[in-house]
Amino acid sequence: MGTKSWDLGINEELEKVERRMKELVSSSQRLLTDISLHVIDAGGKRLRPTLSILSHHALHGNDLVRLIDISAAMELIHSATLVHDDINDGAEMRRGKKAAYRKYGLHEAIVTGDFLFARAFYIGGTFGKKIVELVAESTTHVAEGEMMQYAHRKDPKLSVDQYLKIIEGKTAYPIRTAAQLGVCLAEGSSEDLRNFGEYGLNLGIAFQIVDDILDINGNEQNLGKMIGSDLREGNLTLPVILARDHDKEIGKHIREFMKDEKPDEKKITDCLEMVRKSGAIKNSLEIAKGYAEGAKEYIEHVSASKYHERLMELTELVINRAT
Amino acid sequence: MGTKSWDLGINEELEKVERRMKELVSSSQRLLTDISLHVIDAGGKRLRPTLSILSHHALHGNDLVRLIDISAAMELIHSATLVHDDINDGAEMRRGKKAAYRKYGLHEAIVTGDFLFARAFYIGGTFGKKIVELVAESTTHVAEGEMMQYAHRKDPKLSVDQYLKIIEGKTAYPIRTAAQLGVCLAEGSSEDLRNFGEYGLNLGIAFQIVDDILDINGNEQNLGKMIGSDLREGNLTLPVILARDHDKEIGKHIREFMKDEKPDEKKITDCLEMVRKSGAIKNSLEIAKGYAEGAKEYIEHVSASKYHERLMELTELVINRAT
Repeated sequence: MGTKSWDLGINEELEKVERRMKELVSSSQRLLTDISLHVIDAGGKRLRPTLSILSHHALHGNDLVRLIDISAAMELIHSATLVHDDINDGAEMRRGKKAAYRKYGLHEAIVTGDFLFARAFYIGGTFGKKIVELVAESTTHVAEGEMMQYAHRKDPKLSVDQYLKIIEGKTAYPIRTAAQLGVCLAEGSSEDLRNFGEYGLNLGIAFQIVDDILDINGNEQNLGKMIGSDLREGNLTLPVILARDHDKEIGKHIREFMKDEKPDEKKITDCLEMVRKSGAIKNSLEIAKGYAEGAKEYIEHVSASKYHERLMELTELVINRAT
Repeated sequence: MGTKSWDLGINEELEKVERRMKELVSSSQRLLTDISLHVIDAGGKRLRPTLSILSHHALHGNDLVRLIDISAAMELIHSATLVHDDINDGAEMRRGKKAAYRKYGLHEAIVTGDFLFARAFYIGGTFGKKIVELVAESTTHVAEGEMMQYAHRKDPKLSVDQYLKIIEGKTAYPIRTAAQLGVCLAEGSSEDLRNFGEYGLNLGIAFQIVDDILDINGNEQNLGKMIGSDLREGNLTLPVILARDHDKEIGKHIREFMKDEKPDEKKITDCLEMVRKSGAIKNSLEIAKGYAEGAKEYIEHVSASKYHERLMELTELVINRAT
């Protein structure tokens, strides 16, 4: 685990994305740049650019300069939503660093998010309709996923289907888009676009399920944040939903727990323990594995290459974070 | 005054911009649409689309369909920043309606702003590099202006130059861009682009100065918000700066006043009264008129037409709000 990107032989390209992002956030207002860099530096694994680059190479694309540009734009948008999400989630930490709004102030964080959107928008100008629409649709889906999540905050009855719809919007859709950007700039066929898109979407769902598992049984130091943040924020995730549906006692506990405006820490710890003991973690991981396997099937037919192998490997890496 | 657009013979076009905005915010998440419409409906005078349309016609452009599209995108971005600004300013009301975050919640408002950025981004895909970059640069300047304003919040020493730089970024730059969009889509020359840009920038500065005057001596009912909000938020505006520099007693009062974390209402009312009595309102209005006159000069040479006349008329309307 940790916040470094995986070693998939594309570190040089990922470095270029990082540099491009940093160039783009240079501003006459020093604080905008500082806050942007703070968020960029807590960047995590860069799953989206990783996927864009591997997909591009797997289809023998050779438009890497522009791919890096649009990947940087996607990551700036991702960073913008992270800055805003931290505010919405009341998060203290983001990948081991103080959340931007805690360090720099609420107003400053909101405006920095807007600034990051603007900088991403700027990059869009050099691309055609198709690419810009892919990125814009993906950003729209993220907002829709977030809004659906709020609408179901403290909802003890959230279903697996609803949970999947939320994580599809807020996490999996941009990962789908990232894969498709690699395809578009490699001038892949519409079938490639569909297949790599499905690969990304399914991988993205697996990725978020694993994230949600880690929020229950992960290592706080590796995560760089406290365990149980989802429950604390009133969001049910897959392991909790499965535990609830499996055991009436857990269901009752969760229903009571979700009524409290500010549930005490003991209740959260108890609930996490009940979920861990219920077998729901294992079942959630099986579901995540199912999505990861499903992802692979969509690109099985793509001609063999080291990049294709790495896309296959990526599905394992995503799952292995939980084990 | 009021929140309706001016009667400049382009109501049909403005209606189309309004309709296009409303189309664009349709979403599977009903709440995103509702909040977006709430903000759009508190839309104000639509100075930016007004300027785009008049500039386009004045240069005999005939790309109205696309102009309406990009105007709608600009207004969505403007709406996004308004939703976020209201949060940052702690505003209760926006043009006679409850501020979105007060009505729908902080998280919901933040995500709706992001959604509006995404929808605007979507429109960008159908335009070329030049147009997208104009819009993106303008959005960047708004964020920079806002950030500079925060940096000087409660700063009793804010200078006229600093004030002008702030309002140039947060208000005048998008108005400049709006005029330039009309020019670009009319395939105007680079000289037209420069001149209409300067017209917009100067008009925008005049517009914001008048807004700031109205926050001191306007009519609360017409404004749809409380008088004195700038002072309450700790932002010095031109009349206050001029009053401070003109009279040591006022300067002392402001310095003390700005130290209070939450100044009491009596102090605010006293301060407003001192500014009103100081003659600074009249001087500020003279400065605004100077910018409006300056604006006109940049487009004086444009061939006579009813649209050119209306651009000239617009400068008067902007100033007349204060009288």
